[in-house]
Amino acid sequence: MQIDILTLFPEMFSGVLGQSILQKAAEKSAVNYNVVNFREYADNKHSTVDDYPYGGGAGMVLKPQPIFDAVAALKEKAKSSKPRVILLCPQGERYEQRKAEELANEEHLLFICGHYEGYDERIREHVVTDEISIGDYVLTGGELGAMVVIDSVVRLLPEVLGNQESHQKDSFSTGLLEHPHYTRPADFRGMKVPDTLLSGNHKLIEEWRNKEALRRTLLRRPDLLDKIELTAKQEKWLEEVKKDCE
Amino acid sequence: MQIDILTLFPEMFSGVLGQSILQKAAEKSAVNYNVVNFREYADNKHSTVDDYPYGGGAGMVLKPQPIFDAVAALKEKAKSSKPRVILLCPQGERYEQRKAEELANEEHLLFICGHYEGYDERIREHVVTDEISIGDYVLTGGELGAMVVIDSVVRLLPEVLGNQESHQKDSFSTGLLEHPHYTRPADFRGMKVPDTLLSGNHKLIEEWRNKEALRRTLLRRPDLLDKIELTAKQEKWLEEVKKDCE
Repeated sequence: MQIDILTLFPEMFSGVLGQSILQKAAEKSAVNYNVVNFREYADNKHSTVDDYPYGGGAGMVLKPQPIFDAVAALKEKAKSSKPRVILLCPQGERYEQRKAEELANEEHLLFICGHYEGYDERIREHVVTDEISIGDYVLTGGELGAMVVIDSVVRLLPEVLGNQESHQKDSFSTGLLEHPHYTRPADFRGMKVPDTLLSGNHKLIEEWRNKEALRRTLLRRPDLLDKIELTAKQEKWLEEVKKDCE
Repeated sequence: MQIDILTLFPEMFSGVLGQSILQKAAEKSAVNYNVVNFREYADNKHSTVDDYPYGGGAGMVLKPQPIFDAVAALKEKAKSSKPRVILLCPQGERYEQRKAEELANEEHLLFICGHYEGYDERIREHVVTDEISIGDYVLTGGELGAMVVIDSVVRLLPEVLGNQESHQKDSFSTGLLEHPHYTRPADFRGMKVPDTLLSGNHKLIEEWRNKEALRRTLLRRPDLLDKIELTAKQEKWLEEVKKDCE
């Protein structure tokens, strides 16, 4: 997968792309990162990338020319027929796991990260294919949003995570929040691991985990329960959990 | 504000904390960052921080001891009475702008970032004050989540953003998505700026912006409209926008 990133702060990406899974994915050639300062594409004398908004008001607006030309140059270079051109912004579609799964099937992603400023609307209308918001909060720029999307997508690429099982049991992949985890010691400063987990009885452990996943989802994110279809066994467990909670 | 970060990948933070607003905030002493590898607190011979889950299954679980002791040491050092101890995880409360505003009033935030692994449940129960999820998607670790929360909080600190106005008009702060922005040129390769914005008529411009903010919110995030109280004028504009859309 080719990942191009347009930003005015390329150094922001070094720590994240150079560590852990994102770095390993590049080493394995599962992905190639290309971080580009789009100021290099500004065709005016002072390499200006922003200007005052028409109609007045606070804040600056990113000019169309540098971004139009940077995207065109990267498309040309990649020769991929149709990259997804992703704008990170609070007005975008709310990012969810199924979008990560969709983007993981692409060959070429191109991220546009603004910083402080708004984007000239013509960028949205004529260059961008996807507007994404990673959540209902305001960030200084699109860079962290791009890193979040990249991390969530790259870890799904087939060769990247060693243990395939580990992302099939993720929260959101099953539709439920994960059950609690415990490791040694069984008694840590007086705080104990539930007996069931120490019992060695796999059927009981499986039931405990399923019920705790349902309980946590019910208590913390009941909206998730409306989105999935439970098995008959899960329905029965959920009823038991609801009774416990009364 | 004191910001402590517990992570096994401290280098991930260098690019983000060393740039732009987050760096400037530290230069102005509005904030002090302290990134700590909690492996340093492991009291076993091999500095092990994780172990197999009780009850079996894939994946590793972060042991309680290193995190309990790292948090205790940082609390001691800060002598702040009650830091917010924030765990980044998919099971947490969904992060929103009003939580950023709440955290911006604190003196001391302490972030715990797991990586790949789950957390031993005793960490959640006895150390953590807030479990936060930045969105319904799965990331490799808590580091990006911590960066997102830090960025959204630090930019709200009084001395950090030069232009106070600029975060009062943010999306989510007004409850609506922002209206479109345009800057020069008025005609970019045949793509034109709306006439109203070039008219110089401030009343018309204000009305256009309000209506476009309402239109964008109605089309993209109608759920946000249920959460805010519109003024009489906004109600009228919203009716007009709805008629346009029919």
